[in-house]
Amino acid sequence: MSAAANHLHKCADTSVTPVKTTIHFSITDKVGALDDCLAAIKAMHISLTRIESRPSKTADWDYDFFVDFNAVDVEQVRQVAKSLEPLAKQVHVVGGTGGASASSDLPESTPWFPRKMIDLDTFADKVLEMGEELDSDHPGAKDAVYRARRAEITKIAKTFKTGQPIPHVEYTETEVKTWAAVFEKLTGMFPTHACREHQHVFPLLIQNCGYGPHQIPQLDVVSKFLKDCTGFTLRPVMGLLTSRDFLNGLAFRVFHSTQYIRHHSRPLYTPEPDVCHELLGHVPLFANPDFADFSQEIGLASLGASDEDIERLATIYWFTVEFGICRQGDQIRAYGAGLLSSFGELEYCLSDKPEIRAFEPAKVAQQKYPITEYQPVYFVAESFKDAQMRVREFANSCDRPFSVRYNAYTESIEILDSKDKVIRYAQSIKTDMLTLVDALQKLA
Amino acid sequence: MSAAANHLHKCADTSVTPVKTTIHFSITDKVGALDDCLAAIKAMHISLTRIESRPSKTADWDYDFFVDFNAVDVEQVRQVAKSLEPLAKQVHVVGGTGGASASSDLPESTPWFPRKMIDLDTFADKVLEMGEELDSDHPGAKDAVYRARRAEITKIAKTFKTGQPIPHVEYTETEVKTWAAVFEKLTGMFPTHACREHQHVFPLLIQNCGYGPHQIPQLDVVSKFLKDCTGFTLRPVMGLLTSRDFLNGLAFRVFHSTQYIRHHSRPLYTPEPDVCHELLGHVPLFANPDFADFSQEIGLASLGASDEDIERLATIYWFTVEFGICRQGDQIRAYGAGLLSSFGELEYCLSDKPEIRAFEPAKVAQQKYPITEYQPVYFVAESFKDAQMRVREFANSCDRPFSVRYNAYTESIEILDSKDKVIRYAQSIKTDMLTLVDALQKLA
Amino acid sequence: MSAAANHLHKCADTSVTPVKTTIHFSITDKVGALDDCLAAIKAMHISLTRIESRPSKTADWDYDFFVDFNAVDVEQVRQVAKSLEPLAKQVHVVGGTGGASASSDLPESTPWFPRKMIDLDTFADKVLEMGEELDSDHPGAKDAVYRARRAEITKIAKTFKTGQPIPHVEYTETEVKTWAAVFEKLTGMFPTHACREHQHVFPLLIQNCGYGPHQIPQLDVVSKFLKDCTGFTLRPVMGLLTSRDFLNGLAFRVFHSTQYIRHHSRPLYTPEPDVCHELLGHVPLFANPDFADFSQEIGLASLGASDEDIERLATIYWFTVEFGICRQGDQIRAYGAGLLSSFGELEYCLSDKPEIRAFEPAKVAQQKYPITEYQPVYFVAESFKDAQMRVREFANSCDRPFSVRYNAYTESIEILDSKDKVIRYAQSIKTDMLTLVDALQKLA
Amino acid sequence: MSAAANHLHKCADTSVTPVKTTIHFSITDKVGALDDCLAAIKAMHISLTRIESRPSKTADWDYDFFVDFNAVDVEQVRQVAKSLEPLAKQVHVVGGTGGASASSDLPESTPWFPRKMIDLDTFADKVLEMGEELDSDHPGAKDAVYRARRAEITKIAKTFKTGQPIPHVEYTETEVKTWAAVFEKLTGMFPTHACREHQHVFPLLIQNCGYGPHQIPQLDVVSKFLKDCTGFTLRPVMGLLTSRDFLNGLAFRVFHSTQYIRHHSRPLYTPEPDVCHELLGHVPLFANPDFADFSQEIGLASLGASDEDIERLATIYWFTVEFGICRQGDQIRAYGAGLLSSFGELEYCLSDKPEIRAFEPAKVAQQKYPITEYQPVYFVAESFKDAQMRVREFANSCDRPFSVRYNAYTESIEILDSKDKVIRYAQSIKTDMLTLVDALQKLA
Repeated sequence: MSAAANHLHKCADTSVTPVKTTIHFSITDKVGALDDCLAAIKAMHISLTRIESRPSKTADWDYDFFVDFNAVDVEQVRQVAKSLEPLAKQVHVVGGTGGASASSDLPESTPWFPRKMIDLDTFADKVLEMGEELDSDHPGAKDAVYRARRAEITKIAKTFKTGQPIPHVEYTETEVKTWAAVFEKLTGMFPTHACREHQHVFPLLIQNCGYGPHQIPQLDVVSKFLKDCTGFTLRPVMGLLTSRDFLNGLAFRVFHSTQYIRHHSRPLYTPEPDVCHELLGHVPLFANPDFADFSQEIGLASLGASDEDIERLATIYWFTVEFGICRQGDQIRAYGAGLLSSFGELEYCLSDKPEIRAFEPAKVAQQKYPITEYQPVYFVAESFKDAQMRVREFANSCDRPFSVRYNAYTESIEILDSKDKVIRYAQSIKTDMLTLVDALQKLA
Repeated sequence: MSAAANHLHKCADTSVTPVKTTIHFSITDKVGALDDCLAAIKAMHISLTRIESRPSKTADWDYDFFVDFNAVDVEQVRQVAKSLEPLAKQVHVVGGTGGASASSDLPESTPWFPRKMIDLDTFADKVLEMGEELDSDHPGAKDAVYRARRAEITKIAKTFKTGQPIPHVEYTETEVKTWAAVFEKLTGMFPTHACREHQHVFPLLIQNCGYGPHQIPQLDVVSKFLKDCTGFTLRPVMGLLTSRDFLNGLAFRVFHSTQYIRHHSRPLYTPEPDVCHELLGHVPLFANPDFADFSQEIGLASLGASDEDIERLATIYWFTVEFGICRQGDQIRAYGAGLLSSFGELEYCLSDKPEIRAFEPAKVAQQKYPITEYQPVYFVAESFKDAQMRVREFANSCDRPFSVRYNAYTESIEILDSKDKVIRYAQSIKTDMLTLVDALQKLA
Repeated sequence: MSAAANHLHKCADTSVTPVKTTIHFSITDKVGALDDCLAAIKAMHISLTRIESRPSKTADWDYDFFVDFNAVDVEQVRQVAKSLEPLAKQVHVVGGTGGASASSDLPESTPWFPRKMIDLDTFADKVLEMGEELDSDHPGAKDAVYRARRAEITKIAKTFKTGQPIPHVEYTETEVKTWAAVFEKLTGMFPTHACREHQHVFPLLIQNCGYGPHQIPQLDVVSKFLKDCTGFTLRPVMGLLTSRDFLNGLAFRVFHSTQYIRHHSRPLYTPEPDVCHELLGHVPLFANPDFADFSQEIGLASLGASDEDIERLATIYWFTVEFGICRQGDQIRAYGAGLLSSFGELEYCLSDKPEIRAFEPAKVAQQKYPITEYQPVYFVAESFKDAQMRVREFANSCDRPFSVRYNAYTESIEILDSKDKVIRYAQSIKTDMLTLVDALQKLA
Repeated sequence: MSAAANHLHKCADTSVTPVKTTIHFSITDKVGALDDCLAAIKAMHISLTRIESRPSKTADWDYDFFVDFNAVDVEQVRQVAKSLEPLAKQVHVVGGTGGASASSDLPESTPWFPRKMIDLDTFADKVLEMGEELDSDHPGAKDAVYRARRAEITKIAKTFKTGQPIPHVEYTETEVKTWAAVFEKLTGMFPTHACREHQHVFPLLIQNCGYGPHQIPQLDVVSKFLKDCTGFTLRPVMGLLTSRDFLNGLAFRVFHSTQYIRHHSRPLYTPEPDVCHELLGHVPLFANPDFADFSQEIGLASLGASDEDIERLATIYWFTVEFGICRQGDQIRAYGAGLLSSFGELEYCLSDKPEIRAFEPAKVAQQKYPITEYQPVYFVAESFKDAQMRVREFANSCDRPFSVRYNAYTESIEILDSKDKVIRYAQSIKTDMLTLVDALQKLA
């Protein structure tokens, strides 16, 4: 008995120096203000990774500046923030364990989080385990050819940038055989073990994305299909991300997916996520609108959350997206990808051996779990909409002092921390209500 | 005195054979249903340009099929629709002047319209005027070198596909000099003639997008900036589109932009849109959230509209996005791109010569206008939000029997024509209300 | 040719001394706070007409005090407000032309307005014209018996209090004959001249409220019927109120109605509103939900409005509720009570003699009108919902610095002037959205 | 140890003959339709208790008829419904265990429920226990003077009609002494045992409603105070109502309250609700907006609910409104009226003796409870808003096939069972959103 593959084996964050920092500040519109500000920043001799100026979404015609830099230490962050104060109306510092904050609405300790989809590019070289060294329990650990092949594929992830197509991988005959073994075994179990949503989407993946025993589907094709269904996209990843980075991606409806495949010697086992886990376990669910909403809800809650809350959200993610079960009529079925991609645990989880409890996020978040064996307890969701509402309530009970929304037009996170932004949001809801009333009136 | 450049000189649709048609139908989920359906379609011997199956957004676990094909005539469309009826729950035909419709909620005559952003790719070779023949009044009409250069640049548009970066153009020294002449002249007038929104954004374009007299900004850079601000993107176009296609693009927050420049012999004049018109006239406004909402509103109203309504919406577009003026405090200022890119008409429009009327869409839509000289009448908007609401009201008074919404996650149009879709939409508004209440509570 | 009866013959406010004033302030909840505050107020030696303490609708467990008094002059108001400042968190002064305001969100000059339905009781003895002296052009001016009878009936209004049943009047045979003459004449014209809404309700009034030629319906019965349909109620009034008081009543869905009848000598003419004007002209429309919404919208806009805005709203009221016409299919029909209760003007208004314009509140508000002859111009509404939205937009453009809502549970006006109150309101909308989604799901 | 007073000692419904029935049907507007219909009903020889015609809230200008009658048996109901079918568009039968339903959206078995506040008048003579016979365990059972006095007071309830003031009772010296004993004892415990909401309101009752040891407050004064705060009103009741009737009242924000007082021999004990239980236990909470929302939520869920669901809702009511406790900061406090009016159980419930569980309506609804001794288990609410949302979710999971809303303007229940009604509701939410946006913009 061994654990199913999943994305959160190890959650510990490896602390990094230098400190990735974003300073966001607003200045008043007046002649030359933008140039003065730019000059002041450039004079600071910091190693800038981005500098952007944008129109503020306020009633005051302000400008927003976003300055990303790698600070040598917390003290430098503090100095930069301090020197911007005379220029700016409001200075927000986001980042690291010691973010300083002057005249800021975000508290001192708000950890860094991505604001735009492009910010996810910075995750590429932050994986916890690199492609070339494998844990000793990995069936391919001593197979140099496998390790080289794995490294070749992960190079795609290392250089991938937002907006690019995901390069296709020409899978070898051996790799396809491994896939075929998993595919045959699992698809035989889906009709009796997978949830309705999984079964509904699966034939579409066969028809539109090349799913089948004779080839490994390409991430790029699958990602486009998901984008069409729910706006979710896949993004190639080298290996395991920190829980924070991984969950933050979900806020953008981005799922970090491996592209390599498990070792051919043990087709029904892998200690890490691989393309079988992603394509057979995760992908079908992300095509479901309610599950997509649910997953993004966890992601949004993770943005700028404290380390403790990240831990709790990661546990909720574990017991839902990876190991969740749900009620369907009189039956219990699996929807977690860790289950749906594991022949053994999929059978076990619906047997009478494990304990079954109701999905209550506050309790789930406290639950300890083993990562190298089957789960002793599973939590059963009533529906994905219901689960989403419960996660939302849980998130509201966390102590993050600001609200966020995802703007799908600009592919960016908006922090609803000023009256003007809240008004703009309320106006968009008002406009939606107009559309709703019109649609109702035109309904046959 | 001659007309300012704009995107709607000629609105007449050139009728095309074969008829571009989309058949959209839903089938019930049961074993093998997808395969049976696919086989049936393939047996029809029609020239398919796309075939897609997707999960339906209904409570019944149905599947949606989208089949695009170029029908030889209306009769073929009717036959295809008829032969699908036994397989499907609901058949929608969209396209051409004679779309047949069986058990359909969309009426017989709904003209074809894009449902996904990728559908805009089909506009590429439908321009009304090709790159190589120019009207005799065009200053470059007899300049073979200019015509060849223009054709070289428009080739980019011809091959451009959704999701790709817009190729950069290396502009010649002569071209940059033409740009510089226009740039210097117009930027001198903006402080006294352009609206507040235009002036607010313009310095950001200088700082972020390379605006200035010494180079012509690249569409790709500008498009990314707009995406960041409001989700608008630019898309290269060979020349003038039909009003229908052009307005349909706005529904996706896509603006079709030329990339070539006017003839160097008359830098302050052009009878057609060029990169000066786009970059100095249109672009700054699309960075403003309220103007973006307003423009998309016109676009959404144009989807599947009757020819008469397209004509009316094009007139509204003409008197706003191209030749609009607005009230700002005690003053009147220009926001239309046709004005902001024309030295002569910009001065004229704020003089006491033309007539000024209030912006009331129902009246604007009836207004005749000259295309080769200055406008005798302009309509003054109170604000872009106000103008958006008025266009919405106007759109609701049109006779299109269905409501649409744009889903920015999936970059597609949803037709709100079933109870399930309306419920899903209402649920999303409910969720937004939860976020709004949370944001209000966390507001300092 | 003479004017139709209506409620706004004379709009001038007769300035009154002493100044009716409400001081509203909030105190913090702590032991004995309420008693201390009460003692302080009593020590001020002002002539109190009401003193109430209520729980604040804030998150801070505060208490609200409402103190009504008749100030001898503005200086006294200022002194009272000043002496409350040390005790209170926030002091609002509402009333008179010189209301002082200390640490107040309502500006200095907010005129007094009713906050609770019971406050309408204070209008009883503020009518512009008393029951016993009639204008010389009144057909009953020299008929002492008529004048005495009129005074007898208006006594009911003088003593009427909120919540009481309206006393029945035993109408004399002469009075019933007058009614019968008017009833027969007008009901003959309704099928061809009255709007659809009026015709829809009229048979219900016959069936439920005793309408018919042989008796004059009782206000109390009619008021209960209206309450059932839309929540509107009638309230007996002695004569003409000021425009401000009259419009303020509409904010509570209260219509001030006369109970006496015109002079028997000229059954088809009256220079002032009478029970025929109310029952045949106004009542049927108030049973229509859209018209009720529209009327209340004018009322809400009038609360605390400046004298200029009251004048403008009264003009809008004049051209809608009294003299409005509307489009119904291809035809124009009357909905204004002044028209529907006047044999002559009802015919005239749909003839080709008067001028017809579109209903645009900003323009309507500027229109001068004669009060002693037929209107030269009428404004045509597209629908009551549309008219409501336009009045709402007009109201938002007025300069009142606060928003109000009517709470039908507590029959009181809430001023949405604090974050807590806005949050509570947003929560109620959120709850309504839950109900809406549930209702949609359960729709057959 | 003995039970605290409460309103649900005995839940069993005494089945009654004849069957109270409401038939609600709609007819199309055409000349004479109303009269024809009325004639048809009168010809049926049924014992009508009400017949009303009202405008339908649909787009089709229909009329609604409400006919109340006491059917001799179910067969008669069926016949009446059947004979109306040819006349009507839609026939709803509400009432009894065997309601017939033809072409109806409400299912066969929908139990009768009040639609208008005035319908509550029919509860007056349906109390389970009459005023003159008391249970043998009642301390006043053998005191003929007490029984006569109790009967004298309950006569008020028997004749009370909606809209009337509640007659004042001149309490005797003995009665006031009993009240004083209870008042002194309990007010001493409130600071340490009652929830924050109770403590916040209590001083207001002293200041505005005559609370104090020296007099028993009058229901009428208290009811007006509650109306002002939350729209709740008190209604005198003779004794215990059925659970269904009692809960149905809450849907209208009406609380059925006793007016007599317990026997003087045991001031700290009563086996039935009395004026001490109402005034000290229930009243303070109904002045809190969140608690009012919560209570009404239970009431709305009870309208037309099945007998099983009434039982479950009554259990939820028992463990909240009567015996609820809540978390406040680090502490647990009582908010249930059964606790707040019982010296003994108030102390016991916050001791370490009883079991404390989280408030989860689905579980609470299953909990058995003793009615003659202290509760062994209490459920702790996190907040009233949270509890309201949970009850809402619970209600949605019940099998009632229609949604309802309370219209506070018309004091009636609207069944949201047609597209037109849902549209009208959506429009009202849209209008509320306009107000919200306006209020946000005007917020300082």
